[in-house]
Amino acid sequence: MASKAFAIIAGVGPGTGASIARRFAKTYSVVLLARTPASYDAVVQEINSSGGQAVGISADLSDSSSVKSAFDQIAVQYSGSSLAAAIFNSGGGWARKPFLELTDEDYSGALASQAKGGFYFAQSTLPLLLKARDISPRPPTLIFTGATASIRGSTNCADFASAKFALRALAQSLAREFGPQGVHVSHAIIDGAIDIPRTKSLIFQHEDAKLSPEAIADLYWHLHAQPRTTFVFEMDLRPYVEKW
Amino acid sequence: MASKAFAIIAGVGPGTGASIARRFAKTYSVVLLARTPASYDAVVQEINSSGGQAVGISADLSDSSSVKSAFDQIAVQYSGSSLAAAIFNSGGGWARKPFLELTDEDYSGALASQAKGGFYFAQSTLPLLLKARDISPRPPTLIFTGATASIRGSTNCADFASAKFALRALAQSLAREFGPQGVHVSHAIIDGAIDIPRTKSLIFQHEDAKLSPEAIADLYWHLHAQPRTTFVFEMDLRPYVEKW
Amino acid sequence: MASKAFAIIAGVGPGTGASIARRFAKTYSVVLLARTPASYDAVVQEINSSGGQAVGISADLSDSSSVKSAFDQIAVQYSGSSLAAAIFNSGGGWARKPFLELTDEDYSGALASQAKGGFYFAQSTLPLLLKARDISPRPPTLIFTGATASIRGSTNCADFASAKFALRALAQSLAREFGPQGVHVSHAIIDGAIDIPRTKSLIFQHEDAKLSPEAIADLYWHLHAQPRTTFVFEMDLRPYVEKW
Amino acid sequence: MASKAFAIIAGVGPGTGASIARRFAKTYSVVLLARTPASYDAVVQEINSSGGQAVGISADLSDSSSVKSAFDQIAVQYSGSSLAAAIFNSGGGWARKPFLELTDEDYSGALASQAKGGFYFAQSTLPLLLKARDISPRPPTLIFTGATASIRGSTNCADFASAKFALRALAQSLAREFGPQGVHVSHAIIDGAIDIPRTKSLIFQHEDAKLSPEAIADLYWHLHAQPRTTFVFEMDLRPYVEKW
Repeated sequence: MASKAFAIIAGVGPGTGASIARRFAKTYSVVLLARTPASYDAVVQEINSSGGQAVGISADLSDSSSVKSAFDQIAVQYSGSSLAAAIFNSGGGWARKPFLELTDEDYSGALASQAKGGFYFAQSTLPLLLKARDISPRPPTLIFTGATASIRGSTNCADFASAKFALRALAQSLAREFGPQGVHVSHAIIDGAIDIPRTKSLIFQHEDAKLSPEAIADLYWHLHAQPRTTFVFEMDLRPYVEKW
Repeated sequence: MASKAFAIIAGVGPGTGASIARRFAKTYSVVLLARTPASYDAVVQEINSSGGQAVGISADLSDSSSVKSAFDQIAVQYSGSSLAAAIFNSGGGWARKPFLELTDEDYSGALASQAKGGFYFAQSTLPLLLKARDISPRPPTLIFTGATASIRGSTNCADFASAKFALRALAQSLAREFGPQGVHVSHAIIDGAIDIPRTKSLIFQHEDAKLSPEAIADLYWHLHAQPRTTFVFEMDLRPYVEKW
Repeated sequence: MASKAFAIIAGVGPGTGASIARRFAKTYSVVLLARTPASYDAVVQEINSSGGQAVGISADLSDSSSVKSAFDQIAVQYSGSSLAAAIFNSGGGWARKPFLELTDEDYSGALASQAKGGFYFAQSTLPLLLKARDISPRPPTLIFTGATASIRGSTNCADFASAKFALRALAQSLAREFGPQGVHVSHAIIDGAIDIPRTKSLIFQHEDAKLSPEAIADLYWHLHAQPRTTFVFEMDLRPYVEKW
Repeated sequence: MASKAFAIIAGVGPGTGASIARRFAKTYSVVLLARTPASYDAVVQEINSSGGQAVGISADLSDSSSVKSAFDQIAVQYSGSSLAAAIFNSGGGWARKPFLELTDEDYSGALASQAKGGFYFAQSTLPLLLKARDISPRPPTLIFTGATASIRGSTNCADFASAKFALRALAQSLAREFGPQGVHVSHAIIDGAIDIPRTKSLIFQHEDAKLSPEAIADLYWHLHAQPRTTFVFEMDLRPYVEKW
């Protein structure tokens, strides 16, 4: 039923994930993964009603059996298709507490949602991406969304920084292992607030002080469109007014 | 005489600079800077004969008076235009010698061609880029081309690494100072051989083991097209088979 | 019973941990933590029989209840003492497999032994280190042992790199949060093989191509002896012949 | 006339350089290099009158002929001695201006005092350090003093950051080339104000918010004392209250 090539976007809410899904849906059939239908239903409907093809699947990315079940569904629904791109855009894992107030659940939960989530997602998508190499119109691509905390630990951020550093290590290890096999692995460090519904209440001095989810999606597409002679692994993105 | 917006590409030979010039010439009038006409004549002619607008100016980027004279010419020829993008793509500065065989000329020459060259170029273009902010269709952009040696010193590379580290420091300082003023400053780390005439003799195990200058140019254009809410500062590019 | 100030070394085998214990035992009473008595018995005996004071406690650092029970014992045995230094030197977490052969247990186990282990250890020691600030003859110190994989992900190393990156993020976050409170937090990147029984079979071209555990211990002591005006956070150590 | 082993400290004023000279003078005869006798006279006298051996030589480190002349003197005065340690601690090169106000002299001067200075110093000392390998009681050592600007470009800092990045590249290149030959090359990133006469007027909230030059000197000695199995290349030092 699905079109010849498809993309999977994991971690979809009304923000960046949705924009990435919309961007990749211009060319591919897209699968959206999120914990609950409430996170993807509107985008799936929007894409389908505007000429694209989208499917939403509920999955807890930090739970291996939930991920497995989602990919079993994908295997059935997209059996004749090839996976051109997989994007891990999972949020969560930041309790924003002084270190001695962090609970085991806070810390382990952060590792689960970012590091383990990234691990399960990579193990599920890489076999499909490898298989797609000769068929996909562009080098099969696996992109991870990072954050300031991917390269900087800080006060009240031990949980999230540990998790995001781990995810970056994963991305780097995979780029070194699977790049030479023809899969494009990238890690984007988003350094700043993104202009999404959840950050509406964050008011900055400048009106346009937040990253545009559409511009992030355009960049992810650019990465995917790069030939294998010219892979970008890592980049840092921020609003022009961001201090860094 | 020139079109409304223009771009300057410094350090043009038959390789990356030429590809960048061709890419930006699709939208802008372009000025090509190189030491001798032999480096830019063919590209200038090619662009002009295929519907674009290109001008070549001879300049030694490591010599402040030579740079000044080039920008005096530019001021006259492009008085009614706004500078949308400036790209510093200067090569040179690598004597590839054991440290104790490096001469003062080798080391100072490397600093001159990269660090001082970048400094003169930035001082000449930033006032124009700042002026273009309200007119340019995209945020005015200043891009520096880096190399593996921008982030890694190594044996037989003290001259080039010193120079490229310095250029990166310049780019980073400028991004922090001029980003909030609306100028997009970027630094691209090219990690690998580029597929240009000069590297023809480098033979790798895989046929497509060299970076494509066209893909680099496409990325530079993508950077230039980013809205100011979403600036990439730095990225690393390499061929899929590159060890790193 | 114990002397006025003590140190805790977590992750003690016949190698680096033992050397660190010996070094700190010259000045403090020392507590050695390891999974089994076999790992610490010989060193504990050696220290005690040569005029020092050492106690071994069995603990699985990746298990919160095991860590809690160890620190309950410490609280009783060292109730009148102040904790001058705590060193997290835990090994393990590297299955050395191609990514697609890594199991959930491999990956989660690596995170548990490094990241969670570091987290439990920091949460148990920091309250004691904070309490010791006015009493300890030197700024109370928390040192984490890192590895090449702390700053570099690579092929067959996704598990260990994820775990070591996470531990580094933890160390950096703690340094930023507890440094200003007077606790010295450090992270040492050990880049190379250490000359310990377990690496006997690794033969290099040069006889002295392995790091000396005594020299590592001397460095850790130097860190601990630094005044709070002059804290080193991070350093990289390697044998002179190491390629990097 | 001089004792068997000696050390050279370049860039000596009444601050860090003086402390390093005092520390190394406990074991070695020391040569102090600075632009004018006013910078080293007091320390030279102090060391000589307290049982040590010190000689001051005027040299402009950014001027190759001045450096050559200083080392010609050293060759004569220390012909029977071996060079155990050489420390490049040169200051200067920061005009603290907005980028467009920087002059060519500011920028070129920064490169000259740091990058070229380091280059001349390394070319003059490395042949002596290599010769000392079999004689020196500790691995011959070449240490460069870095700063926050060695790893971070920022507003009003393009000159100093370019120069300090270049110096770090030099240090890294030398560590990789001369480490395997048995010379210990190190780079210390001093991140914060040092407690020296020149910074007296800097008042911080905490009394002890400045780095201790004696503690820096102790660290440099520790580096020098490391066996070649266990070389630290780089470390970052800061006062406990420093934000980073």
